[in-house]
Amino acid sequence: MKFTKMQGCGNDYVYVNGFTEKLSPQEKPEIVRKLSDRHFGIGGDGVIFINPAEEADFEMEMYNADGSRSEMCGNGIRCVAKYVYDKGLTDREDITIVSAGKIKYLKLTVEGRTATDRGHVTMVQVNMGQPVLAPMEVPVIAEATRETPVGPAVVDAPVTVDGEKYRMTCVSMGNPHAIVFMNGVKDLDIEKIGPKFEHHPCFPNRTNTEFVEILDRKNVFMRVWERGTGETLACGTGCCATAVACVLNGLTDEEITVKLLGGELHIKWDRTANLVYMTGPAKIVFEGEVDPYSV
Amino acid sequence: MKFTKMQGCGNDYVYVNGFTEKLSPQEKPEIVRKLSDRHFGIGGDGVIFINPAEEADFEMEMYNADGSRSEMCGNGIRCVAKYVYDKGLTDREDITIVSAGKIKYLKLTVEGRTATDRGHVTMVQVNMGQPVLAPMEVPVIAEATRETPVGPAVVDAPVTVDGEKYRMTCVSMGNPHAIVFMNGVKDLDIEKIGPKFEHHPCFPNRTNTEFVEILDRKNVFMRVWERGTGETLACGTGCCATAVACVLNGLTDEEITVKLLGGELHIKWDRTANLVYMTGPAKIVFEGEVDPYSV
Repeated sequence: MKFTKMQGCGNDYVYVNGFTEKLSPQEKPEIVRKLSDRHFGIGGDGVIFINPAEEADFEMEMYNADGSRSEMCGNGIRCVAKYVYDKGLTDREDITIVSAGKIKYLKLTVEGRTATDRGHVTMVQVNMGQPVLAPMEVPVIAEATRETPVGPAVVDAPVTVDGEKYRMTCVSMGNPHAIVFMNGVKDLDIEKIGPKFEHHPCFPNRTNTEFVEILDRKNVFMRVWERGTGETLACGTGCCATAVACVLNGLTDEEITVKLLGGELHIKWDRTANLVYMTGPAKIVFEGEVDPYSV
Repeated sequence: MKFTKMQGCGNDYVYVNGFTEKLSPQEKPEIVRKLSDRHFGIGGDGVIFINPAEEADFEMEMYNADGSRSEMCGNGIRCVAKYVYDKGLTDREDITIVSAGKIKYLKLTVEGRTATDRGHVTMVQVNMGQPVLAPMEVPVIAEATRETPVGPAVVDAPVTVDGEKYRMTCVSMGNPHAIVFMNGVKDLDIEKIGPKFEHHPCFPNRTNTEFVEILDRKNVFMRVWERGTGETLACGTGCCATAVACVLNGLTDEEITVKLLGGELHIKWDRTANLVYMTGPAKIVFEGEVDPYSV
């Protein structure tokens, strides 16, 4: 089975062309687990199959490293976009990808194009949809502290975690995020405080937590504790939620660069349309061939 | 650049054919660091180049993931042996490989051979050389507790580590090992006790430590704390040192199976010749192609 290893901000998956490589749905979880193992397999955060689709240009069928299904990954979907253009599965620079029944709209930045070379994708913009602020929908059990143009929200609200006082802003981008602005994020003991936020009783579905340091009106540094995973190198929805929180707190412009351990993402909150756009890199690391039944 | 990802007992390296792929010595450390990264590169414990040699059939030029040179790896050298046979670089089943100026002798087990197929290597035996027991040469600062056929040795000697009393046997296989027999190895907090042994003042060059549970006269379970690395899935020299320690303590036969987190290794201490033989698996996981200058 041929595959392509790709990464976006260090979020790395094994990408498989589902048009040509056929595995049965039953065998996929076990094969994904084996292929994702970083010592005995190819190694990766999971496997993404790129399939034909009816309701969009392509389907992204995404699995986590443990073989479970995943609904969406901002870094992963950018790589899918690069894959389908660079491999000649599409000639278009505006494409749609459906994942777990939800359609995403993507704009590709193509470089190196000449009369004889169609070039390759370097950056991809993804329309990440609307931020959700209503406390019940994030969900967070807290009183709204602010009336925003899109309704009441938990902004700069006090919260006590592990005996310490913090202030948080709560945003859902389809998954819950608590954003905490602070200094010294680089040296934060995130392994200690991350789980305390994740399992705090005010988050009925647990929460992702972003610890964010404002650098200037256009740049922030962020580390993220992902619900169920721990610290990761990058989190697309977390960057989107952070940009929204920055604006709600009056700390940055509506278009910012989020610096992460794994790279940089550019986020724009279009407040007129109330849509968040994420732009970031996608990279092919290597091409490979593996026997999925012998790993 | 073409490469092959291989593993032995979960110890995984990127293998490159140095006969055909040419990188300059100056650029190798930096390229190795990038290729070994498990999120941004191919991912592995390091890179091994398989080169022509004058004093042996092949040279193994081995780099750790951080780009530093490594002298020897029992799991790695078995994979080199499989590589050179499976890829048709040799037809012999007894080969020599030189690494950092030292020659190792290997015997290949070939399976699947037919009139038209030369088969492939499944297991490799490596002559790991003589165990060294003299305390000054291990080195360990302790009185010899036993006179053995190969000289005085530190066998079942008391040692206090982090306030607890242990008994250890000290063996060098070119690198120092302290072997501790105990029950409950599976649940041992090795992250806590491993570094305390490693940095104990009685080990002037620090030490690898093997925590070993005797299952019966032919089988043991072992977890290893490697000097400078931490817990690993397998350690070839550690298994050899453990087999020697088992025999010196009268706990097993001279030929044993060592069960590790990453798999199994078969060790035989030939006491007549005073040589230790290690036999274990080697596996090709996948074939790949990468641009080493763009990772």
